[in-house]
Amino acid sequence: MAKELQKWVVMVTAQTPTNIAVIKYWGKRDETLILPINDSISVTLDPDHLCTTTTVSVSPSFEQDRMWLNGKEISLLGGRFQSCLREIRSRACDLEDEKKGIKIKKMDWEKLRLHIASYNNFPTAAGLASSAAGLACFVFALAKLMNLNEDNGQLSAIARRGSGSACRSLYGGFVKWIMGKEENGSDSIAFQLADEKHWDDLVIVIAVVSARQKETSSTTGMQDSCKTSMLIQHRAKEVVPKRIIQMEDAIEKRDFPSFARLACADSNQFHAVCLDTSPPIFYMNDTSHKIISCVEKWNRSVGTPQVAYTFDAGPNAVLIARDRKIAALLLRRLLFHFPPTFQHCLNSYVIGDKSILQDVGVQDMKDIESLPPPPEIKDNIPAQKSNGDVSYFICTRPGRGPVLLPDSGALLNPETGLPK
Amino acid sequence: MAKELQKWVVMVTAQTPTNIAVIKYWGKRDETLILPINDSISVTLDPDHLCTTTTVSVSPSFEQDRMWLNGKEISLLGGRFQSCLREIRSRACDLEDEKKGIKIKKMDWEKLRLHIASYNNFPTAAGLASSAAGLACFVFALAKLMNLNEDNGQLSAIARRGSGSACRSLYGGFVKWIMGKEENGSDSIAFQLADEKHWDDLVIVIAVVSARQKETSSTTGMQDSCKTSMLIQHRAKEVVPKRIIQMEDAIEKRDFPSFARLACADSNQFHAVCLDTSPPIFYMNDTSHKIISCVEKWNRSVGTPQVAYTFDAGPNAVLIARDRKIAALLLRRLLFHFPPTFQHCLNSYVIGDKSILQDVGVQDMKDIESLPPPPEIKDNIPAQKSNGDVSYFICTRPGRGPVLLPDSGALLNPETGLPK
Repeated sequence: MAKELQKWVVMVTAQTPTNIAVIKYWGKRDETLILPINDSISVTLDPDHLCTTTTVSVSPSFEQDRMWLNGKEISLLGGRFQSCLREIRSRACDLEDEKKGIKIKKMDWEKLRLHIASYNNFPTAAGLASSAAGLACFVFALAKLMNLNEDNGQLSAIARRGSGSACRSLYGGFVKWIMGKEENGSDSIAFQLADEKHWDDLVIVIAVVSARQKETSSTTGMQDSCKTSMLIQHRAKEVVPKRIIQMEDAIEKRDFPSFARLACADSNQFHAVCLDTSPPIFYMNDTSHKIISCVEKWNRSVGTPQVAYTFDAGPNAVLIARDRKIAALLLRRLLFHFPPTFQHCLNSYVIGDKSILQDVGVQDMKDIESLPPPPEIKDNIPAQKSNGDVSYFICTRPGRGPVLLPDSGALLNPETGLPK
Repeated sequence: MAKELQKWVVMVTAQTPTNIAVIKYWGKRDETLILPINDSISVTLDPDHLCTTTTVSVSPSFEQDRMWLNGKEISLLGGRFQSCLREIRSRACDLEDEKKGIKIKKMDWEKLRLHIASYNNFPTAAGLASSAAGLACFVFALAKLMNLNEDNGQLSAIARRGSGSACRSLYGGFVKWIMGKEENGSDSIAFQLADEKHWDDLVIVIAVVSARQKETSSTTGMQDSCKTSMLIQHRAKEVVPKRIIQMEDAIEKRDFPSFARLACADSNQFHAVCLDTSPPIFYMNDTSHKIISCVEKWNRSVGTPQVAYTFDAGPNAVLIARDRKIAALLLRRLLFHFPPTFQHCLNSYVIGDKSILQDVGVQDMKDIESLPPPPEIKDNIPAQKSNGDVSYFICTRPGRGPVLLPDSGALLNPETGLPK
């Protein structure tokens, strides 16, 4: 090929959602292959509010693999990116773009370098499963670029090598990650239990809680739990398998009370195992506890669960309301207990699907101040208000799986292959 | 008997320690008899710093059973007091005081009414096992008054009916409560593993942590755990029995590293079971977590445990230092991380055995302000200071079991049988 012909850049842009586990993944039986000690089930969150967008590009003019995350160049040399890259390159197929006159042979992919740009539409540091969405998007976009024949289930096994929970972000709706039995991990894949339309009443409110202490990474945390917790094996072998069956059933039947009871119990048990670790791991803090107490009190006062809560490896609460009406009542309670500080404006304190704020009947900060205490709070207990404990709320819902975006949405310049 | 002869008052005053479990009791197999689902082991705390003093008295002039706690009359009708009273009265023996010319027949005890006054030398509400010391003292003093033949082991089974952990306060030093096998609870008793002189290097610092939320009572809490936790049975049947053997061995050999590892792990597991309960129970708060992190970081930096921590059904930390030198280093760290607020004076912020303060080299508030950060805190992490999170510290040590006090220490007037 003449040098001027080599100036082409081929790119693919994809968008991939985050997911929140309702039956938790905690503990690996194989650290390298990232094989879990139990199945897990997650809800995919609407990418309109929480997603990663990734553009992957290839060009004969690229001299090395490079990656940018949120505009900042980062190293691609990490074992997790490399594992995924290796798996994808080994499955790459011929690519032909007749219009542009580009032809990449299967074997060429090993030599061609990549430029990758990734962007999260939410704060990476907020502890909102950015690595799950990020790795899933990385794998999905590269698989499309390199013309892989693999379906999303097979891609999920590749994403798993990057970040365990990433495999669940290959699908929308309700997703199960089967732990698998094979030593090589080939059967440890995700599949869709039901799509996002199956149960579209659900509304999700995420309370992003200000963390005061640096947290144990989930990788280190689950290693420590596997080594030291006397309860984790009992959980993985005796408790989770039953819950998985019950949760699948609850999702299939849209049985919210069962769904909520299982999700709350499993979140609490995951954190119990963290506490049973040496040294103990505390992901939830006093604010997380307050949110749980608020939901538990309300659920009990009604007699049947209205809202489920679940917490990942951090203090943020993911609250799942049975429908939009309940979500408005939930947000009312949350805004009552955790009003914004004077530095906030309401517009930045409740983000995502703001339309729920209208149902709450709250338009400005004054409306929040005059919110009455929820009826389940007894008169004799002074209602505690905790300004500043919550950074902001995100209103969202179950959402779709990965999609390809048109080139207009690309994060890389189609001429240079550098970030726009 | 002529009426003027009936004016006598016979009284007994006893002092009984509190205890802190290092292998925890959580969960009953029989609610009425208070029979636990696992053995537990405790350290008795020095009654000089934490104890209950109780005067029990009997007089033919008393018209009804009455009781005063910390000077305030309380009801004796509660099931727990009544269980103990019934057990003790049924075992009462003849009592003869030749000097005073008093003779009480075995059968008379059923008819004679009692006056009881009890006093804790520490705040009842601080969550420092006041019920354990209180019920143990109640039983011990009444048993002496009514001239029971039972030894402390048999008395421990009676105290158990009042409050499970009270049975462990019948002995000093290191105490084991055997869960027993009998349905009637006759073999669920405490006995002494070693007295307080066996391991007198140990120094105990209690951080009384300001609770912000009302806590679940341990009675309700353990009921809920037994009903809903999927982990509690595994803990009771598989984990605790091994730990009991190891802990007995560690105590016998004064093996501090093993003692500390077991105590910390078991405290954390007890709280893990609480978290695994529905609704979840949070006894530890962010301050408790900070204290654990401080101790864990220090222990790890030294390479072998210097200090053990254990938490009961509340946020207070009980910290056990391997010796006096380590206790001073511990108090240094605690005062660095949790300095008193300006309202405190040092004299009321560190109570109990204040002599440790001299070893710390701290004489006034200014000395605390100029404490350097502990070496294990890396320079790049700003040391967090948390004023006001700890109410006060109590410095103490393992201590003796119940003792009788001379009448000069009685809480009741020997003429009237009413509180002094």
